Amino acid sequence: MPRATLDFFLFDWLLAADLSAYPRYSDHSRETFDAVLDTAERIADERFAPFNRLVDVSEPTFDGEHVHLPEATAAAVEAHAAAGLIAAGHDYDLGGMQLPYLVEMAANSFFHMASIGLSAYGMLTAANANLLMAHGTPAQRQAFAHPQLCGAALGTMCLSEPQAGSSLADIVTRAVADGDDFEADPLGPRYRIRGNKMWISGGEHDLAGNIVHLVLAKIAARDGSTGPGVRGISLFVVPRTMVDRAGEPVGPRNDIALAGLNHKMGYRGTVNTLLNFGEGMRPLASTDAGTPSAGAIGYRIGEPGRGLAYMFHMMNEARINVGLGATMLGFAGYAASLGYARERPQGRPRREGGKDATAPQVPIIEHADVKRMLLAQKAYAEGGLALGLYCGKLVDAVRHDPDPVTVARATTLLEILTPIAKSWPSEWCLEGNNLAIQIFGGYGYTRDFPVEQFWRDNRLNMIHEGTHGIQGLDLLGRKAIMDDGAALKLWRETIRDACFKAGRFQLLADHAAAVDAAADRVVRATQDAWIDDDPQSALANATPYLQAFGHVTMAWIWLDVARAALAGLPDAAADRADLLRGKLQAARYFFGFELPKVDAWLDVVATRNPAALEMRDAWF
Amino acid sequence: MPRATLDFFLFDWLLAADLSAYPRYSDHSRETFDAVLDTAERIADERFAPFNRLVDVSEPTFDGEHVHLPEATAAAVEAHAAAGLIAAGHDYDLGGMQLPYLVEMAANSFFHMASIGLSAYGMLTAANANLLMAHGTPAQRQAFAHPQLCGAALGTMCLSEPQAGSSLADIVTRAVADGDDFEADPLGPRYRIRGNKMWISGGEHDLAGNIVHLVLAKIAARDGSTGPGVRGISLFVVPRTMVDRAGEPVGPRNDIALAGLNHKMGYRGTVNTLLNFGEGMRPLASTDAGTPSAGAIGYRIGEPGRGLAYMFHMMNEARINVGLGATMLGFAGYAASLGYARERPQGRPRREGGKDATAPQVPIIEHADVKRMLLAQKAYAEGGLALGLYCGKLVDAVRHDPDPVTVARATTLLEILTPIAKSWPSEWCLEGNNLAIQIFGGYGYTRDFPVEQFWRDNRLNMIHEGTHGIQGLDLLGRKAIMDDGAALKLWRETIRDACFKAGRFQLLADHAAAVDAAADRVVRATQDAWIDDDPQSALANATPYLQAFGHVTMAWIWLDVARAALAGLPDAAADRADLLRGKLQAARYFFGFELPKVDAWLDVVATRNPAALEMRDAWF
Repeated sequence: MPRATLDFFLFDWLLAADLSAYPRYSDHSRETFDAVLDTAERIADERFAPFNRLVDVSEPTFDGEHVHLPEATAAAVEAHAAAGLIAAGHDYDLGGMQLPYLVEMAANSFFHMASIGLSAYGMLTAANANLLMAHGTPAQRQAFAHPQLCGAALGTMCLSEPQAGSSLADIVTRAVADGDDFEADPLGPRYRIRGNKMWISGGEHDLAGNIVHLVLAKIAARDGSTGPGVRGISLFVVPRTMVDRAGEPVGPRNDIALAGLNHKMGYRGTVNTLLNFGEGMRPLASTDAGTPSAGAIGYRIGEPGRGLAYMFHMMNEARINVGLGATMLGFAGYAASLGYARERPQGRPRREGGKDATAPQVPIIEHADVKRMLLAQKAYAEGGLALGLYCGKLVDAVRHDPDPVTVARATTLLEILTPIAKSWPSEWCLEGNNLAIQIFGGYGYTRDFPVEQFWRDNRLNMIHEGTHGIQGLDLLGRKAIMDDGAALKLWRETIRDACFKAGRFQLLADHAAAVDAAADRVVRATQDAWIDDDPQSALANATPYLQAFGHVTMAWIWLDVARAALAGLPDAAADRADLLRGKLQAARYFFGFELPKVDAWLDVVATRNPAALEMRDAWF
Repeated sequence: MPRATLDFFLFDWLLAADLSAYPRYSDHSRETFDAVLDTAERIADERFAPFNRLVDVSEPTFDGEHVHLPEATAAAVEAHAAAGLIAAGHDYDLGGMQLPYLVEMAANSFFHMASIGLSAYGMLTAANANLLMAHGTPAQRQAFAHPQLCGAALGTMCLSEPQAGSSLADIVTRAVADGDDFEADPLGPRYRIRGNKMWISGGEHDLAGNIVHLVLAKIAARDGSTGPGVRGISLFVVPRTMVDRAGEPVGPRNDIALAGLNHKMGYRGTVNTLLNFGEGMRPLASTDAGTPSAGAIGYRIGEPGRGLAYMFHMMNEARINVGLGATMLGFAGYAASLGYARERPQGRPRREGGKDATAPQVPIIEHADVKRMLLAQKAYAEGGLALGLYCGKLVDAVRHDPDPVTVARATTLLEILTPIAKSWPSEWCLEGNNLAIQIFGGYGYTRDFPVEQFWRDNRLNMIHEGTHGIQGLDLLGRKAIMDDGAALKLWRETIRDACFKAGRFQLLADHAAAVDAAADRVVRATQDAWIDDDPQSALANATPYLQAFGHVTMAWIWLDVARAALAGLPDAAADRADLLRGKLQAARYFFGFELPKVDAWLDVVATRNPAALEMRDAWF
């Protein structure tokens, strides 16, 4: 990613320097932001990028005792934490920088692009610590969050189970109060946890002194019974090694067993595990004086039954982060294929009067179809980044804007944009990686070039942290209709404002009108989908709705970026003018090649096309 | 693939049994066709399918002397040849069955689905032998084709070079006449070949007694000079081991060195090589009495300078076959994900009044979004198969229809459909595999389930035998405008006839009108693209044109299949009615969800959208 593009989005489009007007960020300025970005870029270049292929081919192994990872993994994870990047957003007195979330995202983007498999450890740890800081008691923060903020421990999120992924209501991991004095433990109400957790990234390794698991489980009576559905689902912090009040892992090991590693198609730099909690492999005592028994010890966070709510507080950030990861893989493929296209000679453009076979071959970047594939990648990756950063700025507004009206608006807009920020880059930057392979031709299909790995790595993003289908249901089934459609209305108004501002530039007037009209069609399709209030037929085509909503959102983002580019053009020197014209051309590509795709998706939504719903098993 | 679907396409839709009306096929009947299909299905089940993952994880290795492949590879290749399937289409007196090409394709489909990596050896060998039978001298057929037909030798196609893939005019492999008596060799004019050939599937192995390479090279003067462009490109048969007149590999080894194996993302069952011809690693004498010297010995096929023409004769079949391979990978993913969706419980459909969390979970096939993803895969895979078989029947008509008008029409229609038969399944059955992974969720991303391999394997198909971009240029730059648009007109008429026939069914009337109108828009867009006869702007969006043309073609195919299904419905028993209703529902899906995508692609073609063409290097 050219740093210039990131800087343009941050400082010229999103006016990130203005964030120092928030009291929390008052010490910050463009200079401090630049310093953080420089550091992140340097560490990503030195400790992450050179090892991205290595961690793909040296998949994690387990010898029955230890998980083995390449040495580069520990070095990368350490360097990231040592630079203070996990704690970056936190208070000064916790070793943080009180960095805006927007700038934190920008810093993270370098790591995602350099090696998504290596960057996941730090991202998960940060998310885990953030959740504990938001919902834990002071003692829990001290014992479990602080060690993560400084890199002494790493974190995981344990939600899924082998039989329950999208349907978290069906988890069967149980938490039973641990003794009559279970509420007396200084680290929080103490439970014994029993159950199997699947797809746990970073679930076992020796990269840090401890691992802090956040585990969803249902609180059960002593006889093991629980209520159905999401009732009783609570959140527990479950350390790999038991800690003292300062969070020091003073032992013993908790009753958690690594049941196996998952062998993935990509994203292999991140060890992914099946963990068995409380099977009795490592029985331990509840207190120093107690008798060892089976059951992993976990401390409840917050109220019983509020586990999903706490987790979803974190999940929204995680989803934006997944989108950012997908985006940066899109950038990685774009950069690689752009470099290749500039150097690879092949063929000659066909011109009037036919080809001249005696002319030298041209670099393939001169072929229109290659330019189209590069331009598409640019539009996907840069568009994804712009949307992700836009959401990042909303997060800052939600948390720290002094004006409650602004906070409310940012909260609502963020709600409806989150499924898009997660799903759109996951789908389209994957397609971008597909185009990167295509530009490399046969070479792109080999492991001698990096693009096939980007494509494999990126494929996970439509699955984890809520599948595409789940995002669609969240958008059309909840976000678009909540509070009488308030979020949808706000989205519509925001787009209208952007169209109005862009429309004053003659070059953008037609495009602004097209984006505005497309947003109208989304609103109408939403109403049509719900016309008889039947969730089954309304939601049957929630995924095409998600796709249409995403493309219109991205058209709005590109329109607004184009407006900013156009505004900057008159004063731009040559290099800068190239940068700005590139943005305009990518926007133009998006309006011409991508925005028109919306109608086909919206059509099935608005007509509540029943082809899928009415399909019968016997007909497949 | 349910055999019932293949049978329906062959016998109910394409009326394959009627092929016995051609004199060449007069001994054949539904019964003989069934027997061949049964044999192919059995061998694919026993010798191919069980080893598909094995050949993915046991990638070919080279120890400096030999290429090592799993034993299962030799067993599969042998069983396929031993059943007479390589020779199937050839004359009885060559050990063939005089099988229609259509039925041969249907038989091959089982092998592609069972293991595309294993099936490639036989397919390449058949294509190689077919080319030699069409263009070789009797002596060349005897020495090089016959051993391949019986499986004693395997074949390759050596076109690409490291610096020349899509641009074959730029190959630098040279052929120099071998001695003054070079024309006196009984196996054909003898040349010394020098150059490097890249991406050669099956280029080196010990699976058979010999390997027969077909090599494109430029005939050079003794001083090495050649003309520019395609002039002088000729075709040579170059055996790995020198043969006697009967084709027995009596040695010595030819001067061909394996320079390396390509390490691919997928399709790993097929060894893929870089071969150096004539470097002098294995100098050999031109005749028994001669002195050994560097240069691989090759025998020219046909006329000098006609190499590309001969190769393209074969290439059209190869392209249809690539499309069939992509299609069958689509079927493989469809079958796997359908099975999984029927068994995996997860969640509950949302109905009016909300969910009942106490209800048991449902198999995910009951979710509309999963049904949508299955239906899409069905529409892609079955549609791809229908189109492939339709083209296969055209091949039979071209070769054996007694009526010259029919031959001419079939030839022309096949010309314009070939780029679609190759590209459409390569793109959309890859997307089908993507959906198969999505249905499996996290499990689909692991190597414990087969779908991730299908996706990786399938990714090659948009690249080899002419990339997507090359297919687009072939379609819009050549096929659609050749002979004053004759092929396009014929395509249009063929669709109109199908729409007319389908339109008589009330259920299909609207769809027929939609398909007819879409075909009109393709014709208009073609004219608009070429409105000022400038190839640069006309062809700038050749790939979106290819996509639009493909989707309209597929809508026509589905319309015609739906007509046949509807016609059969009144007399159908329950099982058969399910089969037919499945076809109707897949067609309905295609008309509702896919056909409307055409407009976005055609729009950029018709307006000659210059976004890609005008993009400048400095703006990326």
